[in-house]
Amino acid sequence: MAEKRILLAHGAGGRLMRDLIGGVFFPRLGGEVLTRGEDAAVLEKADGRQWAFTTDAFVVTPLFFPGGDIGRLAVFGTVNDLAAMGAKPRFLSLAMVLEEGLDLGVLERVTDSVARAAEEAEVQVVCGDTKVVERGAADGIYLCTAGLGLIEGEPASPARVQAGDAVLISGTVGDHEMAVLLAREGLPFEAELESDCAPLAGLVAAVRGEVEVHAMRDPTRGGLGAVLNEIAEQAGLQIEIDERAVPVAPAVAQVCEVLGFDLLYLANEGKMGFFVPAAQAARAVEIMRAHPLGKSAAIVGRVVEGRAGRVVLNTVVGGRRILDLPLGEQLPRIC
Amino acid sequence: MAEKRILLAHGAGGRLMRDLIGGVFFPRLGGEVLTRGEDAAVLEKADGRQWAFTTDAFVVTPLFFPGGDIGRLAVFGTVNDLAAMGAKPRFLSLAMVLEEGLDLGVLERVTDSVARAAEEAEVQVVCGDTKVVERGAADGIYLCTAGLGLIEGEPASPARVQAGDAVLISGTVGDHEMAVLLAREGLPFEAELESDCAPLAGLVAAVRGEVEVHAMRDPTRGGLGAVLNEIAEQAGLQIEIDERAVPVAPAVAQVCEVLGFDLLYLANEGKMGFFVPAAQAARAVEIMRAHPLGKSAAIVGRVVEGRAGRVVLNTVVGGRRILDLPLGEQLPRIC
Repeated sequence: MAEKRILLAHGAGGRLMRDLIGGVFFPRLGGEVLTRGEDAAVLEKADGRQWAFTTDAFVVTPLFFPGGDIGRLAVFGTVNDLAAMGAKPRFLSLAMVLEEGLDLGVLERVTDSVARAAEEAEVQVVCGDTKVVERGAADGIYLCTAGLGLIEGEPASPARVQAGDAVLISGTVGDHEMAVLLAREGLPFEAELESDCAPLAGLVAAVRGEVEVHAMRDPTRGGLGAVLNEIAEQAGLQIEIDERAVPVAPAVAQVCEVLGFDLLYLANEGKMGFFVPAAQAARAVEIMRAHPLGKSAAIVGRVVEGRAGRVVLNTVVGGRRILDLPLGEQLPRIC
Repeated sequence: MAEKRILLAHGAGGRLMRDLIGGVFFPRLGGEVLTRGEDAAVLEKADGRQWAFTTDAFVVTPLFFPGGDIGRLAVFGTVNDLAAMGAKPRFLSLAMVLEEGLDLGVLERVTDSVARAAEEAEVQVVCGDTKVVERGAADGIYLCTAGLGLIEGEPASPARVQAGDAVLISGTVGDHEMAVLLAREGLPFEAELESDCAPLAGLVAAVRGEVEVHAMRDPTRGGLGAVLNEIAEQAGLQIEIDERAVPVAPAVAQVCEVLGFDLLYLANEGKMGFFVPAAQAARAVEIMRAHPLGKSAAIVGRVVEGRAGRVVLNTVVGGRRILDLPLGEQLPRIC
């Protein structure tokens, strides 16, 4: 690693984070399961049942924003990682780091929100832990969740992605990151943006009920751009994306343009990317559009032989460019 | 809850933490499994196998101290909670909150330590997450682990504790908290204190191999005093402890006396408390003393009918007093 100190960008889902994972964590913690680098670990099969296991820390600021809060993010972020492996989320753990002086009412609101989100996502919070640090050694509340889900059918995995697969996204991109940005900075846009944070296991189950899904990933930190790069690399294939086909809410597109953010690198918290055989792509879109969380679903690209690990963007203006892994983040602490 | 703001003492394993759990978390997050309030959740039996699931956050300062560091604490703290349920630890998740500007060498040392500790404890780190917050929004590194273990035999549980059971501790108390205190404050004691942090599943398995263990709990935050109060309450029985019988290293006793700490409320990170039928207590001690991590094991008390939830201490000077749940902590951020 070139950097000798941790930068905010190391936590941003881009190239620096990949360097940290590949340069510091994988060589030390090793292990075949961890180094697969998927959204959740698939644990050994026991008597025909296979568990997916995943964890996330949440440090979003502000704690509450239009469309969600840190509690909903923590629950949905974790269940969506399980859903991305083809697992039905079942159990959650919840650890908290609280800052001394935190208003108890804030903690109660966040806990209420975790409870409601767990109910929506049909998971049970079964264990927890709380630590308190001095004033100034944290920023209000940090949450950490781990989740367990039962894999149904064959686990989805980048290893199953093939040339010829279609790339789908379940809806508009960028809503979450732009909503957090506006809430944080109090920017005077007329548009009311809402985070898309939502639990996706139901949508995933609907698609998988009829369509052969090779891989899924939810484009959180680093957005669609980061996720496509990860899958292209893990699958050893090239991905082509048509910029024009990527769904985006007009208000998000507008804010994004004014502020100079790149839509394709914006975090989402209620969207899933799918890789399915081309022949089944139209049906998958149809199924998603019939679901409340998939109304703007679209086919956005395809997998080709090309060069392993490369993502190519066919731009709106008719050009072609490499869609690289972002270096760091556009905005820190969005989840 | 009387307090309207979070105090450091809410994180200390005492009465304020119990109020937080009982007043804020249990009523909202509910659920039969969570509200059992045990060290780990016992998940539903699937095809004859039963998993224990637990989580912990770690905010210890300093990050490195004699006998351990935050990485070892995180691994051993979690595997010991699994061991306390009678489970063989198998899988760990590891989430980190890093402070911007953290020296990469520190992160590497901590990660190395996690790796070695996982090897010692025979668990696999299978998934992880990293978040970075701005300078001043954390204190170096916070870790959060969740653990999964397979329960062997009947799960140990306070519900199985009976009047007549003997109370055992696997070794000296107070080593961890006093070692962290001296490392943090740089106090000029001649004694070299070391944290006892160690993985206890092997010791537990040795005891359970021959002895019928009703319940176990590792006396971390709040120490033996807090754990005994929890078990007395959950079992609906009274516990009597003989102060003279509680093993303590001379150096720890000395530091403790000079600084005015109460030994029985000091955190340990490599000790297990056992509740076993009186007739098997001597054999349990014998087994522990033959194990490298149980050389100072002792019988320290017994369970009686008495009053549900009460812990009585027979003091060194011949008196009797209630050993209450501590209000808060003696020292913040010890794990």
